[in-house]
Amino acid sequence: MGTETKATGAATVGRQQRRREQTRARLIEAAKTLMAERGVESVGISEITDAADLGAGTFYNYFQSRDEIVEAVAEASIESVGAALDRMTADMEDPAEVFASSLRHLVLRATSDPVWGWFIVRMGAAHPTLIAILGPRAARDLRRGVDAGRFTIPNTDIATSCTFGSLISALHLVLSTEPPAETDQLFARTMLAMVGIDAQEAKEIAARPLPALRLEP
Amino acid sequence: MGTETKATGAATVGRQQRRREQTRARLIEAAKTLMAERGVESVGISEITDAADLGAGTFYNYFQSRDEIVEAVAEASIESVGAALDRMTADMEDPAEVFASSLRHLVLRATSDPVWGWFIVRMGAAHPTLIAILGPRAARDLRRGVDAGRFTIPNTDIATSCTFGSLISALHLVLSTEPPAETDQLFARTMLAMVGIDAQEAKEIAARPLPALRLEP
Repeated sequence: MGTETKATGAATVGRQQRRREQTRARLIEAAKTLMAERGVESVGISEITDAADLGAGTFYNYFQSRDEIVEAVAEASIESVGAALDRMTADMEDPAEVFASSLRHLVLRATSDPVWGWFIVRMGAAHPTLIAILGPRAARDLRRGVDAGRFTIPNTDIATSCTFGSLISALHLVLSTEPPAETDQLFARTMLAMVGIDAQEAKEIAARPLPALRLEP
Repeated sequence: MGTETKATGAATVGRQQRRREQTRARLIEAAKTLMAERGVESVGISEITDAADLGAGTFYNYFQSRDEIVEAVAEASIESVGAALDRMTADMEDPAEVFASSLRHLVLRATSDPVWGWFIVRMGAAHPTLIAILGPRAARDLRRGVDAGRFTIPNTDIATSCTFGSLISALHLVLSTEPPAETDQLFARTMLAMVGIDAQEAKEIAARPLPALRLEP
């Protein structure tokens, strides 16, 4: 009897917890879509709750501020991709292939999920959250290439910034125009050249078979 | 007598015209400063008139919409720099030097005029007005380099986008951190590498004496 009540209680808590997570996910999804359409700074809290079909007050049960939900959207959108890229490239030996295949997947993802792509583009190259999540990864990949004697760059911070800005612009190109065929490879070749890889070799590296990206660990 | 009245009339028209231009310039300046601080999309019309110390209704005597003043700020901020770069590079023979010296001046300008720099960064790599003004110039410079056999790039549109995005990111780096010494040269070297110039030669080109940029023709 006592055990049964405990189990029922645990089930209730579990159900409440799941419902809470679902509502939070709805708010994040609504915020992401609105911000992808109109720009991160142009979206108000009441518009987010409206789009998620929730009462205006609900928002503050989940987030303390607009900045906090932007952070959560970025986390949900980018951190999972960054972690998946880390897993995918963990066994690659050539830092040039690590760099190229990561960039290719980011471009391909914008094509397959334009809402995701527009959210990244609207955040822009200057957004602190984006820099905090992707910046260190890009810098790490560049340093590995330099340490292995594969890359020649005059300054890591500047090369990181340029990779980052180029990525945002490439995503914008892919999303807003009819992009050239194999844009992912063309973009990777351009970035490999930037880090000092010769054009012919860059072409070969960017055309290597691309392992699948698994978002779930 | 008739002549005198005519002259007085002309002077009045001239004075009114000048006052109109001054008011328009005040609105543009106020909009630029606010947009540089907070992002292009976050600034409302009444905030612009407040900051310019003008009545709210005044705005519509000069601009039909918020988009129109954004356009005017971009025009005033970027078109003049683009035109000055065109004049400065008109007599340069080496397309690599044209490309490098233009990029160096853009980075240096963000340092000497941070409001200008932040406005460009806040517009972001994806802003149509910025692309419309700087995009064709960057594409032209890249094509010249390719035609002269100086540059090797897999695709002009992608290289243009990457130059553009890298510039925004480099400006952001310069404005928000203590940038490395001679960031203008380091940035130019990174972009020269991207278009296929060998690292040693890129270093030499980026260190060439930089002609002054004259904003007034």
